[in-house]
Amino acid sequence: MHRTKVRIVEDALDANNTIAQANRDDFDRAGVTVVNFMSAPGAGKTTLLETVVSTLPGVRVGVLEGDVQGSLDADRLAGLHVPVTQLNTDPSFGGECHLDANMVRSAIGSLPLDEIDLLVIENVGNLVCPAEFRVGEDLRVMVSSVTEGEDKPLKYPLMFRACDLVLVNKIDLLPHLEYDLDRFLHYLDNVHPGVQRMLVSARTGQGIDAWRDWLVMAATREGALA
Amino acid sequence: MHRTKVRIVEDALDANNTIAQANRDDFDRAGVTVVNFMSAPGAGKTTLLETVVSTLPGVRVGVLEGDVQGSLDADRLAGLHVPVTQLNTDPSFGGECHLDANMVRSAIGSLPLDEIDLLVIENVGNLVCPAEFRVGEDLRVMVSSVTEGEDKPLKYPLMFRACDLVLVNKIDLLPHLEYDLDRFLHYLDNVHPGVQRMLVSARTGQGIDAWRDWLVMAATREGALA
Repeated sequence: MHRTKVRIVEDALDANNTIAQANRDDFDRAGVTVVNFMSAPGAGKTTLLETVVSTLPGVRVGVLEGDVQGSLDADRLAGLHVPVTQLNTDPSFGGECHLDANMVRSAIGSLPLDEIDLLVIENVGNLVCPAEFRVGEDLRVMVSSVTEGEDKPLKYPLMFRACDLVLVNKIDLLPHLEYDLDRFLHYLDNVHPGVQRMLVSARTGQGIDAWRDWLVMAATREGALA
Repeated sequence: MHRTKVRIVEDALDANNTIAQANRDDFDRAGVTVVNFMSAPGAGKTTLLETVVSTLPGVRVGVLEGDVQGSLDADRLAGLHVPVTQLNTDPSFGGECHLDANMVRSAIGSLPLDEIDLLVIENVGNLVCPAEFRVGEDLRVMVSSVTEGEDKPLKYPLMFRACDLVLVNKIDLLPHLEYDLDRFLHYLDNVHPGVQRMLVSARTGQGIDAWRDWLVMAATREGALA
């Protein structure tokens, strides 16, 4: 029984990877770099996009918004005059807790791939399943808010291990929290030694230049990123 | 294809509900009230349990800790001298993002049901799937931290709709956030009109007496709760 369940999960992930590769091939042919953007609910993904998407020098950016329901985040970003496509995971009941390759594939036809250099896919807020399902991305970025506590790398190791960049957000709140940043970074290095990290605050602007530069480098495939 | 998938999901939920009912029958026979305790990662579930579990007048409490990996929360609670049982959802790869009835069933044999009146099941930190899977509980409590933003009821409606009590946590941070509490409560009433809610801070103790009283009432099955 247990072995059967593991086998079914492995088969599902294999099927997902096959579709993810097809997505990746489509994105590569269009010359679009794709970033899978993940975090827990309310860590600040949308706000971190709002701070940079309209000011990326020389990079045309598009956003694919994954949400269980509604289009609140897409509406916020559309106001910044970047192309935004909404993808809802809620065909029934509670909805899916992550994007998978097939959902992204279903949206490819409505993405303006010829008009953008960089596609940011904002995943559903969740620290577990989004890390398991590749969607055709080149790079993965995750946001960890300091309000969530230092222990998250130990509790959700795959998410922290699977990403290329960790944005430690809301650091303007550090004076008001009992949060040990050194301990968080120690735990982070335990599960993903040396992974690139940036301390940022979408509210004060601290670290946002570095985040913007990273996206520009990713989109132009400079350096060792892509 | 789509209809088949919906059917499979419905069958899985039906199977889960059957096992959840068996769990519930076992809990009822033992005279134990069960609370399914849910939130996003880092909203403060464990801290909110720490503030009350050793000071519940006349109520013997046990905790079942659901985590993808590790036993950090169980270790914290064990220091308070309440019986804690750890349940990890990680048999392989990234692990499950929620507890289901079968996982809880597998733990029932190791729960000291004869020695407790109240069992709190701390679910995996996630606002989507835990709301879909009943585990045999009498009542559901969810924690929404003000650091997560006001829009969460609209983005994760099933979670807010499925619960009997909403703890709005970390309200000590309100002076440092641009968080519109009235708007949050308005959204909450949109998706779950009139649901009981408490404004709490595990750090300052605000609202904790009301939270403790609610648990005592639940455990003693007083009033209209159970």
